[in-house]
Amino acid sequence: MPADLSSPSRNPLTPEPVTAKPGSQSALRARNRQRIIEALVASGPQTQAELSRQTGLSNATVSNIVKLMHQNRLVSTEPTTSSGRRALSVRLNDTGAVAAGIDIGRSHVRVVLASLSYRILQEKSLRLPLGHCASEGMDAATELLEELLERQGVDRSALLGAGVGIPGPIDRRTGTVVQGAILPEWVGINMRQDLAERLRVPVFIDNDANLGALAEVTWGPHGGTENLIFIKVATGIGAGLIINGSLYYGNVGITGEIGHATISDQGLICRCGNRGCLETIASTAIMTELLSRSSQEPVGTADILARAAARDPATLRVIDDAGMAVGRAAANLANTLNPELIVVGGSLADLGDTFLEPIRRGLLRHAVPMVDETSTVMMSSLGERAEALGAAALVLQEQGAPVR
Amino acid sequence: MPADLSSPSRNPLTPEPVTAKPGSQSALRARNRQRIIEALVASGPQTQAELSRQTGLSNATVSNIVKLMHQNRLVSTEPTTSSGRRALSVRLNDTGAVAAGIDIGRSHVRVVLASLSYRILQEKSLRLPLGHCASEGMDAATELLEELLERQGVDRSALLGAGVGIPGPIDRRTGTVVQGAILPEWVGINMRQDLAERLRVPVFIDNDANLGALAEVTWGPHGGTENLIFIKVATGIGAGLIINGSLYYGNVGITGEIGHATISDQGLICRCGNRGCLETIASTAIMTELLSRSSQEPVGTADILARAAARDPATLRVIDDAGMAVGRAAANLANTLNPELIVVGGSLADLGDTFLEPIRRGLLRHAVPMVDETSTVMMSSLGERAEALGAAALVLQEQGAPVR
Repeated sequence: MPADLSSPSRNPLTPEPVTAKPGSQSALRARNRQRIIEALVASGPQTQAELSRQTGLSNATVSNIVKLMHQNRLVSTEPTTSSGRRALSVRLNDTGAVAAGIDIGRSHVRVVLASLSYRILQEKSLRLPLGHCASEGMDAATELLEELLERQGVDRSALLGAGVGIPGPIDRRTGTVVQGAILPEWVGINMRQDLAERLRVPVFIDNDANLGALAEVTWGPHGGTENLIFIKVATGIGAGLIINGSLYYGNVGITGEIGHATISDQGLICRCGNRGCLETIASTAIMTELLSRSSQEPVGTADILARAAARDPATLRVIDDAGMAVGRAAANLANTLNPELIVVGGSLADLGDTFLEPIRRGLLRHAVPMVDETSTVMMSSLGERAEALGAAALVLQEQGAPVR
Repeated sequence: MPADLSSPSRNPLTPEPVTAKPGSQSALRARNRQRIIEALVASGPQTQAELSRQTGLSNATVSNIVKLMHQNRLVSTEPTTSSGRRALSVRLNDTGAVAAGIDIGRSHVRVVLASLSYRILQEKSLRLPLGHCASEGMDAATELLEELLERQGVDRSALLGAGVGIPGPIDRRTGTVVQGAILPEWVGINMRQDLAERLRVPVFIDNDANLGALAEVTWGPHGGTENLIFIKVATGIGAGLIINGSLYYGNVGITGEIGHATISDQGLICRCGNRGCLETIASTAIMTELLSRSSQEPVGTADILARAAARDPATLRVIDDAGMAVGRAAANLANTLNPELIVVGGSLADLGDTFLEPIRRGLLRHAVPMVDETSTVMMSSLGERAEALGAAALVLQEQGAPVR
């Protein structure tokens, strides 16, 4: 499906911010709302006066925010008395509202339903034909979501929004998939708009590596980590950055593009047009291609895992070379950002130490000593669920549920 | 001067946070204080009740913060009436309190005095002997500061604090200079503590590249830039990162270490112990060494500027190679962080387009196209004042003056 370049929404240079700038009035409102939610989570139901005392916000500010949250069914209120005066008790709703997380990949779609208190209520995935076009992926996601809502017995009106992860960079000014996506058919498509029309709820779209990072600090064992880098190694390679506790997007959202760091000056030509990029050495695309050359039949990603388990020498060598290169890229990231934690996810995470050991070697070789000592690298424990979980977390975060 | 390793304050693994964690009570207080200062800057003197309305903070919160600011002489208060009731008018002080910015380099020390409203009141620099020890540098800085305070006629008690920039990484847990500093004599020295004892005011110590970045968004033409990278090219190479409007420090403060990104696998051995690092190709140390080989007498950094102006072919080639390598490192940073702006500073900034052009070429060659389109690179206009100005800005920021 060719991109319709005449549509203004597809011009990546049209400014149309999708999130509040820090320091703006709406960012201030969002921070104040977050404080109120945190107080309700920390101390349970309480009156507006108590919320005001606990947050340091004025009564008028608390009252305005509670009113809005009540309209969005995030809280319930009931009359009560406090020190003999009439008051309104505010309680965070758990049941009822749900958030959907959708992960559309090269050959699969996965949908999860999550509650406001970060419980996974429903989850299902389907295989998609390789090379499917964007509308097929969106159709499949929409059907799966309707099925899960029905199975959970949740009314459509209770759906707060849908988060969607795709394997490719997103221009946040427009919500459009840009050049460099693993599925070239998607480039120029405004998935946010298309999906919002199909689903009739707010849609939050993001890159799969970003959502992996968000999933690690939300659902994984790394809650509270201020600075975390999630490196996704799959058909492509990218990183999601949690900086000072939040996903980092930079100027227009094209961040963590480590797949296109030059590793070998005279290496293979990359799909980005450059040469010797990390992806030409360490993506599953190149690994399966290299292994297919010395094999009777084509080798897939699952075969890499099976052959590594059987200690096949060629497979182990390809994994070792890829790991060292990923470690070198991880070292560049760590030298720049000195994160507490680097988590490696994607389809090779199940290789465990076989992949982690050369990554650690590459990190040790290329990181500044103090950075190597203070930035830990490990494998993701979320497996292939990371992106859909991160997508659901994105909705809960954007719609004001408590950050975990 | 050997480091005294028995001193616990010199153990880089002793946790001792020097700044408030985001989300903590003290970070919350700092944000609230910042809101009040911004309101006073934006709307001038006003009552506490007006401040409460403008900031959304409760009366009690405003009153507590104003009391503290009054104790620190950041504001004056005077009784007034508002709607017929007695009230307290709050005014931001400008005159009186000053902040010092100190830049200690390999062969110089520079001190500036700045007012709360970001005016530079005094400024002076001195040359230091190459290879001076840390205590000589600190002695010279202390004397220079006393001289400037006297010249300005400011009482010592009006000194809010001193910011200090040094060319090397700082472990923020301890305030100690760590391995990798341009002056090896300084490694292990707790400059924050030593200087605080000499100057008897709060001391804020930071890496020179970080302060360059802070100077660009504070004193330079780039105020309001949310994401800016300052690359300092000098005897060493490092980057300072402004992320979401603030200096970014990561886990322990060792960030922006791009001087040690591997550029050439089989390159020269670097002082960090690694091989083919950016510094072995693009620092002024290697450039002067390369040019000295084909020269009758040793070539210094000033000679590079003079010979480039005279279009000496060897000099232009060395600058071109260095620029391409810096551009490649800038591309890796930009691919990761997609900043609005990359500013190149340090002793070669005066080369202008001669250095900028190969940097742009390196960036174009190695950056993902959309990143190259949305991240601009330019030369710093602050020259050798950048670090001292950044150091003064650090004090004003930490002591609660309005962010510019």
